Amino acid sequence: MPTQQTLHKAFKELQTILSPEHVTVDEQVLREHGYSDNSYHDEGAPNIVVFPSNTEQVAEIVKIADKYSLPIIPFSGGTSLEGHFTAPRGGICISFTEHMDRIIAFHPDDLDIVVQPGVQWEDLNLFLKEHNLFFPMDPGPGACIGGMVGTSCSGTNAVRYGTMKEWVINLTVVTPDGKIVKTRQRPRKSSAGYDLTKLFIGAEGTLGVVTEITLKLAVIPQVQAVAVCDFPSIRDAAAVVPEIIQAGVQVGAVELLDTVMMKAINLSSPDLGYAEKPTLFFKFSGASQMVIDQEIKIVSDIAKRHQGGEFKYAKDEKEKETLWEGRKIALWSSTLLKPNASVWTTDVVVPVSRLPELIKETQKDIETSPLPCPLVGHVGDGNFHVFILFDQSKPEEHAEAVRLNKNLVERAIQMEGSITGEHGVGIGKKKYLEKELGKETIDVMKKIKYAIDPKGIMNPDKVLP
Amino acid sequence: MPTQQTLHKAFKELQTILSPEHVTVDEQVLREHGYSDNSYHDEGAPNIVVFPSNTEQVAEIVKIADKYSLPIIPFSGGTSLEGHFTAPRGGICISFTEHMDRIIAFHPDDLDIVVQPGVQWEDLNLFLKEHNLFFPMDPGPGACIGGMVGTSCSGTNAVRYGTMKEWVINLTVVTPDGKIVKTRQRPRKSSAGYDLTKLFIGAEGTLGVVTEITLKLAVIPQVQAVAVCDFPSIRDAAAVVPEIIQAGVQVGAVELLDTVMMKAINLSSPDLGYAEKPTLFFKFSGASQMVIDQEIKIVSDIAKRHQGGEFKYAKDEKEKETLWEGRKIALWSSTLLKPNASVWTTDVVVPVSRLPELIKETQKDIETSPLPCPLVGHVGDGNFHVFILFDQSKPEEHAEAVRLNKNLVERAIQMEGSITGEHGVGIGKKKYLEKELGKETIDVMKKIKYAIDPKGIMNPDKVLP
Repeated sequence: MPTQQTLHKAFKELQTILSPEHVTVDEQVLREHGYSDNSYHDEGAPNIVVFPSNTEQVAEIVKIADKYSLPIIPFSGGTSLEGHFTAPRGGICISFTEHMDRIIAFHPDDLDIVVQPGVQWEDLNLFLKEHNLFFPMDPGPGACIGGMVGTSCSGTNAVRYGTMKEWVINLTVVTPDGKIVKTRQRPRKSSAGYDLTKLFIGAEGTLGVVTEITLKLAVIPQVQAVAVCDFPSIRDAAAVVPEIIQAGVQVGAVELLDTVMMKAINLSSPDLGYAEKPTLFFKFSGASQMVIDQEIKIVSDIAKRHQGGEFKYAKDEKEKETLWEGRKIALWSSTLLKPNASVWTTDVVVPVSRLPELIKETQKDIETSPLPCPLVGHVGDGNFHVFILFDQSKPEEHAEAVRLNKNLVERAIQMEGSITGEHGVGIGKKKYLEKELGKETIDVMKKIKYAIDPKGIMNPDKVLP
Repeated sequence: MPTQQTLHKAFKELQTILSPEHVTVDEQVLREHGYSDNSYHDEGAPNIVVFPSNTEQVAEIVKIADKYSLPIIPFSGGTSLEGHFTAPRGGICISFTEHMDRIIAFHPDDLDIVVQPGVQWEDLNLFLKEHNLFFPMDPGPGACIGGMVGTSCSGTNAVRYGTMKEWVINLTVVTPDGKIVKTRQRPRKSSAGYDLTKLFIGAEGTLGVVTEITLKLAVIPQVQAVAVCDFPSIRDAAAVVPEIIQAGVQVGAVELLDTVMMKAINLSSPDLGYAEKPTLFFKFSGASQMVIDQEIKIVSDIAKRHQGGEFKYAKDEKEKETLWEGRKIALWSSTLLKPNASVWTTDVVVPVSRLPELIKETQKDIETSPLPCPLVGHVGDGNFHVFILFDQSKPEEHAEAVRLNKNLVERAIQMEGSITGEHGVGIGKKKYLEKELGKETIDVMKKIKYAIDPKGIMNPDKVLP
């Protein structure tokens, strides 16, 4: 941990760059920037939080951190799940929430937009809606573009639109020596040099501080629809997915919720009246009603062949919202399954063909556990989450959550999968990274890390073991 | 250049790893692996060409190169345009053409396939067709997956499917110290650690030798169609593209050929009977005829609003082939515009909105040049090629080709564009890279290069200035 003397000097110098109210050591603010209610790892607060307004200020802040070898931890939405923004070695937290939450440039003709890291994705989509555009990632509510770049997020739309890696054109990054780097220019594709953009996406702030992001945008599909269908077993439901893909239907989303999850949703909103069976939630989107109708016909036929129940299909805006509501409230509803429950949200991904096996093995493990564990999967990608419900005040329940998560992660690795599909590594999962990737691969990552950040000041203790 | 003594030692050691006929210093073979008929840069041949059969042999070869500090140049299709595989410092060329052109594993349920770098993309698609699948990149004929990874290629389908960066799941790479690294596991998405896959895509062999590639595959669209429409001016034709995108129509391809190009095509195949006007070639693809018909209706209406001529639309397989033929023979036909012509194929990309301006400025430049320069653009991406026709035996024509290319590249940079959309940097364009990206960005790339390849043995003199 840095000495008080060092911190005092850094604090004074930071105040020469930012107005005094944008540099703080207020205990409450430090705590808010170092701890999360959604992750359950060893954590710590930063020593100083700064609220810069632009890239140049960030560069000056980083130069001070470099001078005093102080850790730099970037912070935007604070919704991450693996302790990404915690500060186990103290240091300076750069918070984008106050003054770096603006749109810098909007190019509707090019379908792109330049934003600061503190922009919330929901706010961005509100702005874009007027222009008939949207940004297709949908992580948890409150997430900001900065953190979404850091973790390489995605969400329910990934089966159609892909992940952050496919939707960022370029980044402006402050490197650990305080230089300002733009990863590339603004065309939609380029073969000019190493792909630094992708290198910083998913690097979780360990290689530099992202201060501006150019995002690709999509046109809002002219027609969208939502459908829901239940199945006698998870295996039946899962079998639908590859057939949809093989049929060439590009669904907007396909989400699998298990029986326990459907029970939780009914507890929270009995009016929705879902069957308490494994259920697939679909989004369809296209250029015309005709297109959608035909896709729905193909998908509902496939569902029927796999013992699907009634294929409920929403026709107007209100029905659509009601029908999707169950998926939307899944995480929150889970907490009703257990008093005083905290939710440990897991995240693994495997090749699509291995998903039924992974789910089956996971359910076996869950059934013998005292903790309720509803399950929801972005099944089109082979990505799924188990919500492990446990009481934080009970060490044995915490230990059981750790055990279930560990089993899940190791099972995914054995099935050619990844320890994280969209949440990132943080400190929570770095102990599993070598098991997934192997020592040699980690060594290449470490070489890159040390080449770019030789003092190791950028978000230390995250990602790399 | 390496000494004869060093080369002799290396040659002997290589023969202990590979069977003697897979290590050669035959002048003819060396020449074939160092020079290209399609690029016009200072070039040189390697000292030794090896034909390994697997990743382990490549690792052993690289260890020998490392021991003697000999350059390593990977070679697959040999169709690249910027001197990517030339050997200005001699060294060992690793050729994948003979024994590393196999499919290693095929996972139809996961829509992926693992291949060696010597697999030609057309052969791959022939194999996949039986399974109703395809790999959506379409670079020049003869290109192999290895080189396609190296240059981050794309082609006419990029507007719908994206580039290599979106279609590679993982890579097996031999690092400069002879270690074997797999960049990540096989799920379709992952947030686990730095994106090494993308780092090696477009690195042109300067960071390591790619020996196995897992590719995503797409389902062949159930229905495909082709259409052609001419316009009174390039500006009219170009104006169609953003409107199609805004209308939410996802065309399969949209290609712009200028008047000079259409003349060349008519010279080569008068029967095709195209109007000698700026022309858009379209591909449409979807899950049903109904979908396609509707998209064609929307696009033809937009074309009409921009003074488009007859919207010719192919209904059966034979008509489709005939209609697309013009686009297919464009490059080859160009050579008919000038006796003894070589073709300097340029490649720049700008934000889509800047494309009409870029084309206009480029045409001004071309009109005052004695060299015929037909033009073809992947206009949905803002990417376009000018085919500069010149006589290699005339130094003044070579100088004029260099001048036109330089002007084009610098114009693209000024319009927030890139010096290469899909062909890569090689040695031909590295002098422009800093102008595009800036010194600080190049410095980060250099740090990565030196961290991974401290001796600089991996495809030296390519990409980085």
